[in-house]
Amino acid sequence: MDSTQPLYQRLASHYRHAILQGALTPGERVPSVRTLMRVHRVSLSTALQACRELETEGLLEARPRSGYFVRTAVRPALPPPREPDCVIDAAQYVGVHHRISEYVARRAASDVRVDLSVAVAASHCYPLDELRRAMGRALRNEAQWMVRGAPGQGHPALRAALARRAYSQGMTPSADDVIITHGCTEALNVALRTVTSPGDTVAVESPTYFGLLQILESLGLRALEIPVSPQTGMSVEALDLALQTQPGIRAVVAVPNLHNPLGSIMPDAEKARLVALCEARGVPLIEDDSYGLLADDDVPLRALKSWDRSGNVMYCASLHKTLAPGMRLGWMSAGRWHRRAAMLKFTMSRANEGLAQAAVADVLEARVYDRHLHALRLTLRRDRSRLAAAVAQHFPPGTRACVPSGSMLLWVELPAGCSSWRVFETALRAGIAITPGTLFSNTGRFEHYMRISCGEGYSPRVEEALRRLGAIVAEASPRATA
Amino acid sequence: MDSTQPLYQRLASHYRHAILQGALTPGERVPSVRTLMRVHRVSLSTALQACRELETEGLLEARPRSGYFVRTAVRPALPPPREPDCVIDAAQYVGVHHRISEYVARRAASDVRVDLSVAVAASHCYPLDELRRAMGRALRNEAQWMVRGAPGQGHPALRAALARRAYSQGMTPSADDVIITHGCTEALNVALRTVTSPGDTVAVESPTYFGLLQILESLGLRALEIPVSPQTGMSVEALDLALQTQPGIRAVVAVPNLHNPLGSIMPDAEKARLVALCEARGVPLIEDDSYGLLADDDVPLRALKSWDRSGNVMYCASLHKTLAPGMRLGWMSAGRWHRRAAMLKFTMSRANEGLAQAAVADVLEARVYDRHLHALRLTLRRDRSRLAAAVAQHFPPGTRACVPSGSMLLWVELPAGCSSWRVFETALRAGIAITPGTLFSNTGRFEHYMRISCGEGYSPRVEEALRRLGAIVAEASPRATA
Ligand SMILES: Cc1ncc(COP(=O)(O)O)c(C=O)c1O
Ligand SMILES: Cc1ncc(COP(=O)(O)O)c(C=O)c1O
Repeated sequence: MDSTQPLYQRLASHYRHAILQGALTPGERVPSVRTLMRVHRVSLSTALQACRELETEGLLEARPRSGYFVRTAVRPALPPPREPDCVIDAAQYVGVHHRISEYVARRAASDVRVDLSVAVAASHCYPLDELRRAMGRALRNEAQWMVRGAPGQGHPALRAALARRAYSQGMTPSADDVIITHGCTEALNVALRTVTSPGDTVAVESPTYFGLLQILESLGLRALEIPVSPQTGMSVEALDLALQTQPGIRAVVAVPNLHNPLGSIMPDAEKARLVALCEARGVPLIEDDSYGLLADDDVPLRALKSWDRSGNVMYCASLHKTLAPGMRLGWMSAGRWHRRAAMLKFTMSRANEGLAQAAVADVLEARVYDRHLHALRLTLRRDRSRLAAAVAQHFPPGTRACVPSGSMLLWVELPAGCSSWRVFETALRAGIAITPGTLFSNTGRFEHYMRISCGEGYSPRVEEALRRLGAIVAEASPRATA
Repeated sequence: MDSTQPLYQRLASHYRHAILQGALTPGERVPSVRTLMRVHRVSLSTALQACRELETEGLLEARPRSGYFVRTAVRPALPPPREPDCVIDAAQYVGVHHRISEYVARRAASDVRVDLSVAVAASHCYPLDELRRAMGRALRNEAQWMVRGAPGQGHPALRAALARRAYSQGMTPSADDVIITHGCTEALNVALRTVTSPGDTVAVESPTYFGLLQILESLGLRALEIPVSPQTGMSVEALDLALQTQPGIRAVVAVPNLHNPLGSIMPDAEKARLVALCEARGVPLIEDDSYGLLADDDVPLRALKSWDRSGNVMYCASLHKTLAPGMRLGWMSAGRWHRRAAMLKFTMSRANEGLAQAAVADVLEARVYDRHLHALRLTLRRDRSRLAAAVAQHFPPGTRACVPSGSMLLWVELPAGCSSWRVFETALRAGIAITPGTLFSNTGRFEHYMRISCGEGYSPRVEEALRRLGAIVAEASPRATA
C-alpha cells in the first residue's frame, strides 16, 4: 500500500481488494461506518469518505437506513468464457487487410450513434488542460524544436521521464535505451522488422489485436496463433509446444497486461515462464504493454521486460490509451537489438517531432499524471461493471464473458452459431458499432465472439443500445436455449 | 513576372535572369542607375533598390565610382562535371546500412565545428515566429486534437492547403488525394511498399540520396542505378534501356527537381518523357519533390505528377527543407494506388497528430509563407555562389562541380583517385563535416566525389574551413596535376 496516499484511499483500497478478490461477495453487507472507525482507528469522515469512494466506483451501494452493501451488479451473472483448446494455427494473414477494410468502410458509411467499438477512453477522460498548458510552456521555452530535428531516439526529457516511470513496472531502462516512436503501432513495426524477414513466422495470441494482424500481413509475415486464456493470458504450454514442433518461428508477440480483446492479465509466474521460455529457445519476445497502466489497482502491473536478463525482450508501449490519444507517442526499449531498432526507426520516419515530446515529458513528471491515471481507472472500472451487468441482463442465455480488471474492453462469447459479423451489420443499421470477433484471428474460431467497449462511457442511451444489441444477438442465434 | 511584386523586385528579377542565363557575364558592367531609370521608367530609389537587392544576393558588386558589375565569383572557374557514362548497375544494397552507420558513428564521435554536411538550411532561416504563433492559435482553437486522433489521411485543413498549393506546380490533387505522412521519409516507405515486395528491383538515380538507399535495403529491395546528368537529371534513355533489358523492375524513384546530391533539374521535356515512358511500360513512378520549392527562381518548378494522366505517378514531398525542419511533416498523392497507400500508412503509424498539422496549415495559407520562401531562396543562392567560388579558389586542379540553381548542395568531383572517405576522415579530425560520395551509390563510381552544403550559411570560419578542405583534398589526391 502506498503510504503517501490519503488515509481514506488506503482504507478504500483495502476493501476494494476484498471485494474484487471475492472475500466480500455481491449483496453482502460491509462493516458499518462505526465498525470501520473502531477497527481501523480512523475518524468518522475518513470512514465515510472511503465508503463513498467505493460507491462512486460502483463497488458499493448505500441502502437507506441499512448501510453499505457490495453491489450485486459488480460481478455480472455471466458464466465465464471457456478456456481455449490447446490448438495452434499456422496461417498467413492474407485476408485481414480485406476484412478490416470492409469493417472500416461499413462503419464509415454508417451513422454511428452509440460507439461500443473504441479501444480508448472518451476524450474528456484525458487531461486536456494539463496537456494544453504543458504545450504552451514548451512553445515558450523550446519552440526551436519546430525548426530543428530532435535527436534520433527522441527528446532527452521524454526518454528520461519514460525510463524513470518504467521502474514502477519493474524495468530498469536508462534514457539511452528508450526510442520514441509514432505510437505503439510504429514500435511494433520496428520491433518486428528488427528480428524478422518477410516469409518468417511469428507466434501471436489468438485472439489478438487486429492492428497487429494487419502489420503482420503488410510485412509479409506468417502468424502462428497461440491460445489465450481469459484468466492467465497466452498459454505458455502451447507456445512451448509450438516452438518445439513448428520450424522457423522468429519472434513471439504478447500483450501480457490487459490483453486486447480478452482483457486477461498474465500472473507474474506465467510472465516469468514466458520470458524464460523465449530466452531458452532463442526466440525474441516482443511485449506490447499499451494498456498496462489502466489496471484497476493503482499498483502497477509488472512488464515481461522486468524479468529480462539477456535483452531478449523488446518492450513496446503507447501513450495513446493512457494520456493523449491524439499525440501519436509511443516508445520502445529494444534490449539487445537496440542499435538495429534505432536504425530502422530512422529509415521509417526519422525522429519524432520535439515539441510534443517536450510537452508530454512535462506532464509525465507532474503529480497530475498519477491523479489522472487514478481517475481514469475508476471511471473505466465503473463503466465496465455497468457494461457487463447490462450484457448479463439483456443478452440471451449461452452468452459468456469475463470482466477484466482494467481497461475498457469486454470480450463476449455469443451463443454457438451466432455470427458476430451479422450482428455487426445489423447493429450498425441501428446506429450501434461493435467489433466482430472475426477481425481478431485468421481462424474461424471467433466468429461467435464480439468485442464491446465502455470507452465512450455509460449512459441511458448506451443501456438502451445494449438492450437492442441483446435482441439482435438473440435473433441471430440459431435456437433460443430455453 | 508576378505583378503583385514591388517594382524594384520585378526589376531585380529581370537582371537576375540575365545574369543567371549568361546574357550578362561575370565581370561585366551592368547598365548604370541612370540608364536603368531611363530604360525602365523607374525612380532613382527603385533602380538603386534593385541593384542593392542583387548585391545582397551576391550577384552584383559595387565598385567605387564605377558602378555595379556582375560578380566574378558567381560562376566559379570550376569546370563542369563530366556527363555520366550510360552504364546501368544492378545492386542489392547490402552494404549501405553499414556504411551509413559508420558515417553517423564517426560524426557523432567528433567535435564538428563547421558542418558542411547538412541537407537543410540553418534553423534561423525558417519562420520560427510565425510557426510559434500559428501553434499558439492551434492550441487555443483546436487543442482537442491532443486527445483525439486526426482523420486517417491527416487534418483536413492541411490537406486542403497542400492541394491548393500544388496547383502552382501544375498538379491538380483534391484534398482527398493527399495523405499526410511523417516526413518524405515515411512517404517514400509507403510508396515503395505500395507497389513492391521484398526481392523486387527498383530503378533509382545514380548517385542518389543515401536515405533512399537505406530505405531500399531495409525493405529488402534491389536497386538498379540509372545515371544522372548534372544538367538534365535522370537519363531517360538509360532508364528506357534498363526497362527493356532488365526483368522485374517494379518501380522507378526520381528526384526531378534539385536532385540530392547533384542539384540537377530535369527540363520539362525530359520530365514529360520520363512520365510517358513509365506509363507506357506500366512501371509506377515515385517522385520525390523534397527540394522543388527551393529553386532560385520564384516561378515554381513543375512536378512530374503534373504530366500524369493515368495515376501512375506517386508524388512525395516534405515540409522539412522548406518550412519546418523539426515538425516531421511530409505528404503524398499516390495516384491510382491511393487506397493501398492510405492503408499502409495506417498500419505503419496511424494518422499524424492533428495539432501540428493545424498550425502548419495556417502558415501555408498565409502570405508570409511565400515571403519566407523568397528570402530562403535568396539566402541559399548567395551562400551557394560563395561556396562554389571558394571551392574554385581553394581546391586543386582536377576538381569539377556544377553550381545548381537552387537548394543548398554542391556535388564536387575531386581529382581522379582521391578517396572522399579519406577526405571525410581527415576533415572530421579538423572539425569539418562533409558527406563522402561513397554513401550515394552502391557502385564504387563516386569514391572521388563529395557533397558539401551551404545550409549552415557562409562566414569567414566556413571560408577558412574550405581552404583547409582544399588542402586536405590536394593531399589526398594521387599526383598534383600541374
Ligand atoms: C494491443 C494494442 N497495441 C497497439 C495499439 C496501437 O497503439 P498506438 O495507437 O499507440 O499506435 C493498440 C490500439 O488499439 C492496441 O490495442
Ligand atoms: C531527396 C530527399 N528525400 C527525402 C528526404 C527526407 O525527407 P524528410 O526529412 O521529410 O523525411 C531528404 C532529406 O535529406 C532528401 O534529401
